[in-house]
Order: sequence, then C-alpha cells, then structure tokens
Amino acid sequence: MPAYTLSATLDQPHDRALDAVRSALADQGFGVLTEIDLQTTLKAKLAVDVAPQVILGACRPALAYEAMQVDPSIGAVLPCNVVVRATGERTTVVEAFDPNVMLGISEAGGLEMVATDARERLTAMLAALNEAQ
Amino acid sequence: MPAYTLSATLDQPHDRALDAVRSALADQGFGVLTEIDLQTTLKAKLAVDVAPQVILGACRPALAYEAMQVDPSIGAVLPCNVVVRATGERTTVVEAFDPNVMLGISEAGGLEMVATDARERLTAMLAALNEAQ
Repeated sequence: MPAYTLSATLDQPHDRALDAVRSALADQGFGVLTEIDLQTTLKAKLAVDVAPQVILGACRPALAYEAMQVDPSIGAVLPCNVVVRATGERTTVVEAFDPNVMLGISEAGGLEMVATDARERLTAMLAALNEAQ
Repeated sequence: MPAYTLSATLDQPHDRALDAVRSALADQGFGVLTEIDLQTTLKAKLAVDVAPQVILGACRPALAYEAMQVDPSIGAVLPCNVVVRATGERTTVVEAFDPNVMLGISEAGGLEMVATDARERLTAMLAALNEAQ
C-alpha cells in the first residue's frame, strides 16, 4: 500500500462495507460532506467499467476550523477522503487519506495536533471495521 | 503561499470569483463533482464565522481513470480541490491542489503524464482568471 493512506481490507461485499464505513465514521465524530460514486461517474462520462468505488468526504468541523486557522490554504486537502473500493466480490478495501501527509506538504507549523487527532480517529475507525468482521 | 497549491489572487468579490472559476474550470475540461460551502458548514456545526470559502471538487474523468489504473489508491486524493476563498470584500484567492504533490506521495510510477496534464490545465485556468480581470 502506498504510504499516503491508512487502510483496512474487509471480507465484505462493497455495499455492506460502505454502510459499515459510514457508521464507523459517525462513531468517530466525522460527518460525510461529499460522496462520489466513481463507478457510476466513469460509466456515464467515459463508458468504461470499473469496480465499485465510492469516495466519501469526511469532515470533523472542529478539526477543519482549527487547521484553517493554522494554514489558510488547508482547504485544498479538505475534507478527508475515505475511499471504499471493491477488490473482489466479497473483498473491499477502505483507504483514508493519511492526515500526516499534511505535515509533509504544508509549510505551516502547528498542524501536528490536528493531524494527530484526525489520524487517531481514522485509525480507530479502521480498527473498528476490522474487529466487526 | 505553501507549495502544495497553485494559486491566483483576484480583485473580485467572492461570489463573482466563484462564478468565474466555474466557467474557467469548464473551459479546461473539468467537471465539478462536489461542492462544500465551508462558511455555511462551520456556521451550522460550530456557530463560528469565517470568510466565504467554497471547495470545488474538480474532476476530468479521463485523467482520473488513467490515474486509477496506475495507482489504485489514487482516489484518496481525487477529485482535485479548487478552493475559492475571500481574503477581503473585493479580494478572492483561488487555490488548486497541485497535482505534482501526487508524484511526491505516491510510490506508483507512471503518474507523471496525468499530473502534468492536470497541472497544465489548472495553470491555464488560473492564467485565464488573471487575464479576465
């Protein structure tokens, strides 16, 4: 797995995994602000077939607000993407954008606490998904 | 400006700049898949006041599809965020996530062409916005 995501592999079909991810995100205090069904979008725009893949834009407003005050440009990497993509009929990979990447690309000091908080919540979400299987 | 965005500063109020960005993105072949009104969201969730800021999720499906085939995890940084945020009553900053960041964080080889194509289009969009003033 590339180093810019935190991930879990679930022995679940895509639709069930997607429901589980929504619940697990809510449990960790994330709202979902955006949702892209990439399979449907690419079918409509390019007439190509890809495996089910949904990109959820997860946001914890308090963290977003804190990050904005430290780095006014941080909106360019908000919300935090959580991708749910089928890799088989009963296998689904869940990948969240690793908030630590923000620390590598932003020159603003002071994002550590926000990134650490977000990362702990996403890690807990993925652990909960793994445990629930 | 931090190095992870491409930006332009426009002498325009936020609402006018937002309309101009939408047109300029379309001219460069980008669709807008998602839209977050951060000012409204933060007011509703946290009762705080921030300057007008809208995050547009821009996507050129052909590029997204190409990137997915090179790096299956790339959905974690899709779509390409284009942030339109007021910095004054008649000053608006437009910042796009720099596609070159993908090259720094992904271990997958072969993203160069996609990143270069996307970057050229975003650069052209920002140049058009500057020229139209």
